[in-house]
Amino acid sequence: MDDSDAVIRVETGGGAYDVTVGTGLIDQPECFPADVLGAEVFVVTNETVGPLYADRLTAALGSRRITLMTLPDGEEHKTLESFARIIDAMVAARMHRDATVIGLGGGVIGDMAGFAAASYQRGVAVVQVPTTLLAQVDAAVGGKTGVNHPGGKNLIGAFHQPRAVIADVAVLDTLPEREYRAGLAEVVKYGAGLDADFFSWIEANAQALLQRDAEALRVAVCRSCEAKAAVVQQDEREAGRRALLNLGHTFGHAIEVATGYGSWLHGEAVAAGMVLAGRLSGRLGLLPADDAARLENLLSVFGLPVAPPPISADRLLDLMRMDKKVLSGRLRLILMKGLGDSFVEADCPEGEVRAVLHAAAAG
Amino acid sequence: MDDSDAVIRVETGGGAYDVTVGTGLIDQPECFPADVLGAEVFVVTNETVGPLYADRLTAALGSRRITLMTLPDGEEHKTLESFARIIDAMVAARMHRDATVIGLGGGVIGDMAGFAAASYQRGVAVVQVPTTLLAQVDAAVGGKTGVNHPGGKNLIGAFHQPRAVIADVAVLDTLPEREYRAGLAEVVKYGAGLDADFFSWIEANAQALLQRDAEALRVAVCRSCEAKAAVVQQDEREAGRRALLNLGHTFGHAIEVATGYGSWLHGEAVAAGMVLAGRLSGRLGLLPADDAARLENLLSVFGLPVAPPPISADRLLDLMRMDKKVLSGRLRLILMKGLGDSFVEADCPEGEVRAVLHAAAAG
Repeated sequence: MDDSDAVIRVETGGGAYDVTVGTGLIDQPECFPADVLGAEVFVVTNETVGPLYADRLTAALGSRRITLMTLPDGEEHKTLESFARIIDAMVAARMHRDATVIGLGGGVIGDMAGFAAASYQRGVAVVQVPTTLLAQVDAAVGGKTGVNHPGGKNLIGAFHQPRAVIADVAVLDTLPEREYRAGLAEVVKYGAGLDADFFSWIEANAQALLQRDAEALRVAVCRSCEAKAAVVQQDEREAGRRALLNLGHTFGHAIEVATGYGSWLHGEAVAAGMVLAGRLSGRLGLLPADDAARLENLLSVFGLPVAPPPISADRLLDLMRMDKKVLSGRLRLILMKGLGDSFVEADCPEGEVRAVLHAAAAG
Repeated sequence: MDDSDAVIRVETGGGAYDVTVGTGLIDQPECFPADVLGAEVFVVTNETVGPLYADRLTAALGSRRITLMTLPDGEEHKTLESFARIIDAMVAARMHRDATVIGLGGGVIGDMAGFAAASYQRGVAVVQVPTTLLAQVDAAVGGKTGVNHPGGKNLIGAFHQPRAVIADVAVLDTLPEREYRAGLAEVVKYGAGLDADFFSWIEANAQALLQRDAEALRVAVCRSCEAKAAVVQQDEREAGRRALLNLGHTFGHAIEVATGYGSWLHGEAVAAGMVLAGRLSGRLGLLPADDAARLENLLSVFGLPVAPPPISADRLLDLMRMDKKVLSGRLRLILMKGLGDSFVEADCPEGEVRAVLHAAAAG
């Protein structure tokens, strides 16, 4: 770690830990000290990330007993079957309760590694080494873990805070363009939902971000993680404020489920979902038209979808009703009163939601 | 609830709740108030218990939206596959995050219902209605949930405290004799491991307990739950003292795995395991011979096994090394210095353990 590295402290009831953001971190043994990582390490990665970074990470881990497991790449593999395979491999490797799981990959790997760590012997430690922008700014921080179910995204899982998060922005260089841009959707989310100044900063630095400028990236990841840490510390289990991190996500999850996992990337679905949340907010007289336009424009500059796929409003509404945020059948959505100013609407009028979905399908 | 019902309060970091012990509780709507149980209820039971008690419980639950799921009976069904079936059924029943799962059955049902509740949408409430003696005195209290893996018992699971535990000793009348006696093993465990006075009380009331005398049973369940609550409150996640509740369990789990789940009942394996722990403690010069003899005698009076099945010491030792209590390869066992006086030995000499297993196999 050098002076340009930033450390963000996250303190929750489920554990306190550091998120380290910097360049070249996965090669640095000092990022994996003995008080963070024990003697037995089980690394979960996928067939895309593993060949690129597993050897380098393993070298930094030193003389520990290390077992590496490589899963297929893609959201369609984020299943209970993959979870069972990880558990099987941990048993075969005779991992004990003081073992540490490392998730080396994007959000899918981090969520599955985290859920396996949460469940193996009722809980072992996990360290997240996110390798996608989406995972660095969102998935790796905050302790949400889980797998998908045909009936809903992340329907099976646990809250399990990591022991540490190592966000090495240098590894983003190898990220495919489409995945990189999908990650920018979550960066936009922090600005649009929580921080108008950050939204303006993203607008001003959009081209630098598109060019993966190292300094711009470092700032974007840091500010996103700080925003997330602040929310998670107040509300680890999403009793209230944490739901704001789901701006665009109820629409987005429905899009992901309806199109089959892996067809739309999560960030792409969230981009379209944020636009729909913005339109609904506008329709309800809450969000000024200028703000809605700035949001759509910024997402367009990032080459992200601003409309849902051609799926009937009824089907999407049906899937939205299965969202985890739904309580006793009421449609609970995150709406906006302005950029950076979002809130939880506990009982959205279904007719208005349907109208927004219809209009989007027609357009 | 009437005056003879006892309420034991359990307070842990993961939640505070009441264990109610009494007679006829499953018929009483006041045992299931709105602040404990929401509007959506998902009852998990098995094909033995369901036909006997599901209708009565459902009647007491009143006008809530109730979905009943019936699983096959037996430890061999405590698998990740059964867990997945419960999740599938909860999705099909469109349970939301404010739903409550009820586990109506023995330890197997309680553990699976609890793990499904812990994992569904990252955690919904669970209420335990234990119908076996073993579940009433042990499994239902304390928040341990999970399923077995071919490589080890309860290897996949979560800590998830129940919202309430309703222990109706009247339902024990229908328990098969063998299962009832297996439950007595866990009652003996509290005496042998933690409370010499309680051990003496069990000796004095052994015949009343064997005859399922209602008052003796109520006292036995209450004192066991009180003992468990006291330990769990101090150490919810088994960092230290909670391990004492596992007297006989490392030997016992190895016996269960080696014989295939469902062949030996859990309590039977624990009985043989406690005897082995006692002999090891004696061999190490810790436990007086009189105390070891009283333990074996009491278990014999209850018709419980006091020797392991004919399985090689090597095989059992190998399985013991996969126990959750093992840390970094050291054999961690609960030993006794006297009745009611147990402690955690973090690094048991393997040669002595092997000698005890050899001697038992030879006998």
